[in-house]
Amino acid sequence: MAHHTGIMAAYEEATKGYEEGGIPIGSVIIDQHGVILGRGHNQRIQKSSPTLHAEIAALEDAGRQRAEVYRNSTLYTTLSPCSMCTGAILLYKIPRVIIGENINFKGDEDLLRARGVDTVVVDDKQCKDLMRRFIEERPKEWNEDIGETS
Amino acid sequence: MAHHTGIMAAYEEATKGYEEGGIPIGSVIIDQHGVILGRGHNQRIQKSSPTLHAEIAALEDAGRQRAEVYRNSTLYTTLSPCSMCTGAILLYKIPRVIIGENINFKGDEDLLRARGVDTVVVDDKQCKDLMRRFIEERPKEWNEDIGETS
Repeated sequence: MAHHTGIMAAYEEATKGYEEGGIPIGSVIIDQHGVILGRGHNQRIQKSSPTLHAEIAALEDAGRQRAEVYRNSTLYTTLSPCSMCTGAILLYKIPRVIIGENINFKGDEDLLRARGVDTVVVDDKQCKDLMRRFIEERPKEWNEDIGETS
Repeated sequence: MAHHTGIMAAYEEATKGYEEGGIPIGSVIIDQHGVILGRGHNQRIQKSSPTLHAEIAALEDAGRQRAEVYRNSTLYTTLSPCSMCTGAILLYKIPRVIIGENINFKGDEDLLRARGVDTVVVDDKQCKDLMRRFIEERPKEWNEDIGETS
C-alpha cells in the first residue's frame, strides 16, 4: 500500500476527532494484504481517557491479534508517536511505522529506529495544518496529552 | 509510603484478575500524600483488550490528571513493565516505579533507568508465585500479551 493511502485514512480519523471536539490525531493499522485491521483517534476529551491516544485506540479497535499479525502490519499515524505509543509498537513488534508529520510534536521516533522499526515521516501538509490549528486553539488540552505543564 | 504497602495493593489487583480468569498482573499509582490515584489489573481476557495492561488500566482509573500530579507519584506494578507500559511511565514523567518481580518477565526496565526513572525491583515471592502459576496454566494467553509467538 502506498504511504499516502494509509496516511489519508489516519487523517480521516484525525478529522473525526476534531469534529467531535477532541485532539485531532488519527491512526490506522494495515495488514500485509492492505486490510485495515483497526482505526482510531485520540479520545482524551471524548472519553476522559489519558491512554487512548490514536495509536492505542487503533490497537484496541483491532482487538486481540496473534503476534504474527502485528509482525506483518504497518501502523500509520498523523503525528509522531509519543513514548507510550512508541512502546506499544515495540511491544507488538510492528515492523513499519508511517508518520504524517513531526513538526508539531516529535515523539520517540529515534527509539523506534534504534530498535529496528522502519520509520518514515511523510511531512504531510494536511496533518500539520490540522494539528497546528488545534494546538493554537486548545494549548492546555494538548499539553495535558503529552504530559507537559502549561 | 513503604514499598511493601504499594506492592500489596498491586498484588490485590493481580489476584482479582486471576479470580476473574484473567492475566494476574496488577498496578496502582500513589500520589505524594500516599493516596491511591488509580488501580487496575490486566484486562486482555476480561475485556478482549490488547492495551489494558495493568499499568494502563491504573492510569485509566486515575483519569485525566495534570502533569504535576504524575510527576509527584509512584507507580507500583507486580511485574516488570513491558515496552508500552514503560512508555506510558515516560510519557507522564512518573519519577519512581516499584516492581514486584522481574523473574517471570523482564520488560523495558533498563530504558526506565536510562531515562532517569528511579526503578526498584523488590523481588516479591507472592508476585512471582502467582505469575508463574498463570504462565504454566495458560502459556498461549501469556505469550499473546507480550507479543510473542507460541
